[in-house]
Amino acid sequence: MKKVFLLVLSFMLVSFGSVAFAAKSAPKTTVPDYAKVVQKGVDYNKCYECHDTIKELRGMGKHSKLACENCHGNIEAHLKEPTNHPTVYTEWQACGKCHKEQFESFMQVNKHRPARDEKSQLTNRSPNPFWDKLMMGHGFTKEHALTRSHPFMLLDQVLVDRAAGGRFQPKNGWMYVNEGPKKIWDVIVDTQPGNDHKVFMKQTAAAVNPMCIQCKTQDHILDWAYLGDPNTSAPFNRKSNPTAMIQSKKLQHGLNCYQCHDPHAAKPRIVRDALIAALTRPEADTLWHKDPNRTNIKVIDMGMRGYTRKIAILEKYDSRLLCGQCHVEYVCNPGSERTTGKAVGYDSPLTNHFPYKDVLSMYDHYVNQLNFTDFIHPLTGAKLVKFQHPEAETFYNSKHAKAGVGCDTCHTPKVKDKKTGKVYTSHFAVTPKHDIKASCLSGNCHKGWTEKDAVYAIDSVKAYIKGKMRKAEFWLSALIDKVVEGKNADLPADVIAKAQDYHVKAHILWEYWTAENSDGFHNPEMARESLAQSIDASMAGIKVIDDALKAKKAAAQQNQAQK
Amino acid sequence: MKKVFLLVLSFMLVSFGSVAFAAKSAPKTTVPDYAKVVQKGVDYNKCYECHDTIKELRGMGKHSKLACENCHGNIEAHLKEPTNHPTVYTEWQACGKCHKEQFESFMQVNKHRPARDEKSQLTNRSPNPFWDKLMMGHGFTKEHALTRSHPFMLLDQVLVDRAAGGRFQPKNGWMYVNEGPKKIWDVIVDTQPGNDHKVFMKQTAAAVNPMCIQCKTQDHILDWAYLGDPNTSAPFNRKSNPTAMIQSKKLQHGLNCYQCHDPHAAKPRIVRDALIAALTRPEADTLWHKDPNRTNIKVIDMGMRGYTRKIAILEKYDSRLLCGQCHVEYVCNPGSERTTGKAVGYDSPLTNHFPYKDVLSMYDHYVNQLNFTDFIHPLTGAKLVKFQHPEAETFYNSKHAKAGVGCDTCHTPKVKDKKTGKVYTSHFAVTPKHDIKASCLSGNCHKGWTEKDAVYAIDSVKAYIKGKMRKAEFWLSALIDKVVEGKNADLPADVIAKAQDYHVKAHILWEYWTAENSDGFHNPEMARESLAQSIDASMAGIKVIDDALKAKKAAAQQNQAQK
Amino acid sequence: MKKVFLLVLSFMLVSFGSVAFAAKSAPKTTVPDYAKVVQKGVDYNKCYECHDTIKELRGMGKHSKLACENCHGNIEAHLKEPTNHPTVYTEWQACGKCHKEQFESFMQVNKHRPARDEKSQLTNRSPNPFWDKLMMGHGFTKEHALTRSHPFMLLDQVLVDRAAGGRFQPKNGWMYVNEGPKKIWDVIVDTQPGNDHKVFMKQTAAAVNPMCIQCKTQDHILDWAYLGDPNTSAPFNRKSNPTAMIQSKKLQHGLNCYQCHDPHAAKPRIVRDALIAALTRPEADTLWHKDPNRTNIKVIDMGMRGYTRKIAILEKYDSRLLCGQCHVEYVCNPGSERTTGKAVGYDSPLTNHFPYKDVLSMYDHYVNQLNFTDFIHPLTGAKLVKFQHPEAETFYNSKHAKAGVGCDTCHTPKVKDKKTGKVYTSHFAVTPKHDIKASCLSGNCHKGWTEKDAVYAIDSVKAYIKGKMRKAEFWLSALIDKVVEGKNADLPADVIAKAQDYHVKAHILWEYWTAENSDGFHNPEMARESLAQSIDASMAGIKVIDDALKAKKAAAQQNQAQK
Repeated sequence: MKKVFLLVLSFMLVSFGSVAFAAKSAPKTTVPDYAKVVQKGVDYNKCYECHDTIKELRGMGKHSKLACENCHGNIEAHLKEPTNHPTVYTEWQACGKCHKEQFESFMQVNKHRPARDEKSQLTNRSPNPFWDKLMMGHGFTKEHALTRSHPFMLLDQVLVDRAAGGRFQPKNGWMYVNEGPKKIWDVIVDTQPGNDHKVFMKQTAAAVNPMCIQCKTQDHILDWAYLGDPNTSAPFNRKSNPTAMIQSKKLQHGLNCYQCHDPHAAKPRIVRDALIAALTRPEADTLWHKDPNRTNIKVIDMGMRGYTRKIAILEKYDSRLLCGQCHVEYVCNPGSERTTGKAVGYDSPLTNHFPYKDVLSMYDHYVNQLNFTDFIHPLTGAKLVKFQHPEAETFYNSKHAKAGVGCDTCHTPKVKDKKTGKVYTSHFAVTPKHDIKASCLSGNCHKGWTEKDAVYAIDSVKAYIKGKMRKAEFWLSALIDKVVEGKNADLPADVIAKAQDYHVKAHILWEYWTAENSDGFHNPEMARESLAQSIDASMAGIKVIDDALKAKKAAAQQNQAQK
Repeated sequence: MKKVFLLVLSFMLVSFGSVAFAAKSAPKTTVPDYAKVVQKGVDYNKCYECHDTIKELRGMGKHSKLACENCHGNIEAHLKEPTNHPTVYTEWQACGKCHKEQFESFMQVNKHRPARDEKSQLTNRSPNPFWDKLMMGHGFTKEHALTRSHPFMLLDQVLVDRAAGGRFQPKNGWMYVNEGPKKIWDVIVDTQPGNDHKVFMKQTAAAVNPMCIQCKTQDHILDWAYLGDPNTSAPFNRKSNPTAMIQSKKLQHGLNCYQCHDPHAAKPRIVRDALIAALTRPEADTLWHKDPNRTNIKVIDMGMRGYTRKIAILEKYDSRLLCGQCHVEYVCNPGSERTTGKAVGYDSPLTNHFPYKDVLSMYDHYVNQLNFTDFIHPLTGAKLVKFQHPEAETFYNSKHAKAGVGCDTCHTPKVKDKKTGKVYTSHFAVTPKHDIKASCLSGNCHKGWTEKDAVYAIDSVKAYIKGKMRKAEFWLSALIDKVVEGKNADLPADVIAKAQDYHVKAHILWEYWTAENSDGFHNPEMARESLAQSIDASMAGIKVIDDALKAKKAAAQQNQAQK
Repeated sequence: MKKVFLLVLSFMLVSFGSVAFAAKSAPKTTVPDYAKVVQKGVDYNKCYECHDTIKELRGMGKHSKLACENCHGNIEAHLKEPTNHPTVYTEWQACGKCHKEQFESFMQVNKHRPARDEKSQLTNRSPNPFWDKLMMGHGFTKEHALTRSHPFMLLDQVLVDRAAGGRFQPKNGWMYVNEGPKKIWDVIVDTQPGNDHKVFMKQTAAAVNPMCIQCKTQDHILDWAYLGDPNTSAPFNRKSNPTAMIQSKKLQHGLNCYQCHDPHAAKPRIVRDALIAALTRPEADTLWHKDPNRTNIKVIDMGMRGYTRKIAILEKYDSRLLCGQCHVEYVCNPGSERTTGKAVGYDSPLTNHFPYKDVLSMYDHYVNQLNFTDFIHPLTGAKLVKFQHPEAETFYNSKHAKAGVGCDTCHTPKVKDKKTGKVYTSHFAVTPKHDIKASCLSGNCHKGWTEKDAVYAIDSVKAYIKGKMRKAEFWLSALIDKVVEGKNADLPADVIAKAQDYHVKAHILWEYWTAENSDGFHNPEMARESLAQSIDASMAGIKVIDDALKAKKAAAQQNQAQK
């Protein structure tokens, strides 16, 4: 009977699609019981007996008198038997019960651009014909779509064609529309038996891994040791099977509130381990280290379960560090050593690494310092780097940054509630074009500008930089063709190696800007410089091959003449 | 004197263009005399003496008491002398005199996109640089524009650069704007003497033929035998000179009402012969045959003039069959046999053929079953298929189809007349975005959605599929280059043939979606599967050549070493 | 102390960017003292003693009683000592003090498209991937952006990446927004010492020269002899260092009012020397000469300082001649002789030349008549022509031109001041889409059209022509590849030369339309013809190489067989 019912249900899902599903069985976004504010809970002092770090944190801020029960379950049992761990309410709603406006603004769906808007469309950021050629061999060529908004991040990651080989599918279309963000397991199905992490659907990749998940959710914050080191007792680590991680249903929410807000201290914090590692590494070589006005951080080890779990409390809100937990370039995959070609696997902490430097340092960082390759271009053989979304590094030293603006000024501005008049920080985190008044035109910023003026200024910067991106792509494509020509002509290995090195340089200085989500707006001067250097490198690489081809032809003709 | 006048007139037309013409001599869209409803005409029983089929049809529906004079002229003369045939009022207005709202909605001009919007523009469906390379050698590369709306179909077909070699030109610009649809000979001129069907203007093709005209108009419905068989006494047939057909001025209206509505029975009907042939062929292999809920049809031979003329009455309105008379993939041109290369001319019924199967069956249908080639790619030599607009087949088994939706639900929805409050079927037949409320949000469909939600959902599906189209084009282009490389390297014929076969596969699975008018929206799952298979085929073809090149190089090196 | 202050100021500019700058130190667009209308000045008769030409001009029109002091300074001193020259008020405001509405409309900022909107973006007029390949080797590949509006022309020229090697930079971002046009030295800084005219920033060109400046400003109208002949005492000439010209600060305003309006005669005039030269050359071969209804001109030599300075007074307003001073194809750079390859430098008057003929005459004009090459394509070796913005020539003999419409009808239409009701000529000079009612729908033009109709008509013409442009680019790109293939195969020189000649033809017939600013709308018939001929030429060139390759292969095989 049960099996029949499932078959019928499955049939309904497939047959009636979004209509029937939406109309009949849509799970409501109910706020669970934990949403009631608990005024009086257990005596914290009992907790503090073991958790002195928590005591220290709670001493710092406004949450000091908040009952533990507001964020944790299973407390009574835990007090009786310590190994019976309390639960953590990871839901957005847990914070939303007090921070109503922040929660509601955060939960908005971003409809100014379509869902799954493939970047290699001709009107998008990394348009063909160049994208698939320049990135040949990398999983992002399977789908390089933009996510919808923060709470959809995990869902969109699980569904994107490059992540899980197509095994997870939406129950109900792509849930584009009027239902708002949900727990992922309310809206997806696992279409395959077992937990193999491989390609199931044509033209997909199974490239998601425990590291890229770190930036999509921190539902598993207590199940992951610092840097995901494999040799700990933490349930998940760098070597975990990502399919099994998703199947565990422990990962449900895109971006948790507590990724930026320490719930005990009510202070801004960093939880992303690779950022803490970057900020505390002995080289002291990040953009943050070089910033004389940097925000101080205090690193605390919260580990209680036999493994290290570091966080860093910030002395003040600093969006470059908070957003910089994810909106950065990072390594999140295995690769190989450049010099030896030896595999670099998840054993290596290199697979969970933030450079946190600017684009012009990337060649030196990856080639000379890390000796690390992400992927090899199948046509040229060049050892390339794939970039993530380096918004934080890009913004450093930009005109806006120097003027004292942070990510939050434009992306999570202060707004006024239309009904209550209450001013709060919008957590929608969307393009400033969504609310030009609250962003560009607010405070002492662009006084005297109209909304039209601001859009014009934004579009103008982007038009200029997009033009440069297209040129960089043109020349990089020409370089690839030229290297292929050189290889087909059996040019000497050192000539090819020299041209490949130019390919690496030109690639790094270009690809960064297709990953960066502003068409260069966050730092147009840097974007211009980087893209111009990319073109220079492509042209230099072409010259290397052309010169060698010419020399070879001349030698052959001389040879012929002597015969 | 007359000649001088003509010269002057011609000068005016050229000199003053749309302005003068529009202001001074625009022929009004007058409804002719036949537009008066005739209440009492000849006694039908006299007609029925010969026309028993008409009697049967008229018995079926609401037109049973309608005077014959409403749709036919020359009746009195015909009654006296049977070979003195009655005329048929083929004008849209003839039906419009009773069906006012349907007529007026049908006559609207579609201004949401420009006229002659070339598909190979970068922002369109089949953008360069790939389109002209992938379709090289085919007439659609001359102009692959979209028509404006149903009543313009014949006009736009006559004018498009691939149809009549440029001989027919608009009198008055392209009649884009406020005058509405007209008889084509009110707005075109024939710029050439004679009736040669060839190229007159640079970069045009003379590719229109009697079969593609079938879907543009049925003004000549009584002058064409079933399937256009040449060996009948019908005035027009598959071998007719299309220029002469147009010059005859018998073809005037884009899409006649009676292409879907039987005027005698007042029932839905099929008149397009190749669809009737597909639905009645012994193989019983169409999507309709495989649909357990298919609408039954009754085929009737209306032939009275010495040749067969079949129609099919539907048991109920079924837009997949009605729209499927034209919005399908069909063969409408001569070609060649794949195996022998022998020409397949208009003698062959293959030149007027509907597969009426889904995209994944197309390779087998054309290659294995029909052994038919539309055109040969000049660079690779692959024997390719050109697709038409297969919306009907695409929609079969889609999510929307399974939910019980038809073409009409979205494209010709029920609307309410703003003044009279009367509810009628809009015959504008335009994108649902034109009226989201009447389409997506009507009835039990997408309840709770806003118009913005619906546009977001539509655009999201399209963004995803357009991304896949761009990828399929990238890889198909790479395959073409690779086959050329293989041919230049004198690879063995069997290797080239194998790669050509992958070219055919990849082409079919891609090109279908540039011809289909929804960017995959009508069936995104099918579109995704097809395009992914296309990419797989392109990659496999590239591998065939690469492997052979590598083997050849290795053999040459060994040869060299042995010397 | 001063140095410290400068450093601090410089720091502020860099650090606070547009915000601080705009708020604190934005130089106000003040109207200087000369803005007061002087009612009574010196006795003109004193002036006329020497300046009889001025007397003649002032006799012609409404400015006859205007005090000289309204437009000139230093008059008293000049009267005392003639070599102490008077000054000329070149500012827009000088005319604006009387012509308020014209001035204010002229000063508007064009925000319907972004500033520095690079044409090689995929959604723009000359999109990649083809643009950078087809124009390889030319400075316009560095940046091919559109200017904002007339008063920004000089500023945008000085800043564009192809002009001055990046040495001049905006003080304050690109001054996109709400401040309006200014003197260029109010908003730029010179970032380099000296006056070298070379490349300072990566991926820029230093290609601006005294001739292209002629169309950006005429602030130096009295410092330039007719045609910029070098052997005169005029301060600037064809051989002047353009960087030094800019550094002189004598060039400040984009487009002066007096470029079209003779201030003495209050009549329409031509000041652009190369147009006067074209209209008066003995060949009498321009479009103007061939126009039976041409507007008569009277050429006057205004030279007083020891060198010739011609102007031409028009018998009536004729926008084709007025706008045709700049919106034309012209040579403004050195090049080489086609036949000999010998350099053609600024000594030659060829470097300041207007053909003023239509696109179909361009090959004959440049190849056969002038024997002049702009640049050589680095891949094919073809000797190419770079076009400027030939709107005037394009418009000749167009449908609109024949209907009696001028540039002004659509681009500077009559409008009514909303407050005063006064009707005046808008000098905004923007796309007609900005004010469809005042342009397309005014007077006897497109009666009965709605604004939507007009936009639909415009977009439809453009869609068709843009489609043809993309096709022409596709084939030209294919020709380039083919010539490279031929060169690599060492085909005979005469075969390559023949293909290069087709490259020149195809290039001319295409590139013209990416320079022309209407996507063919100004003359769609001509655009279609030209682009179709371009495709024909590309195809013919490909055939030349393909035939030769085939012949070579056949010969080689025969050779092999005979061994």
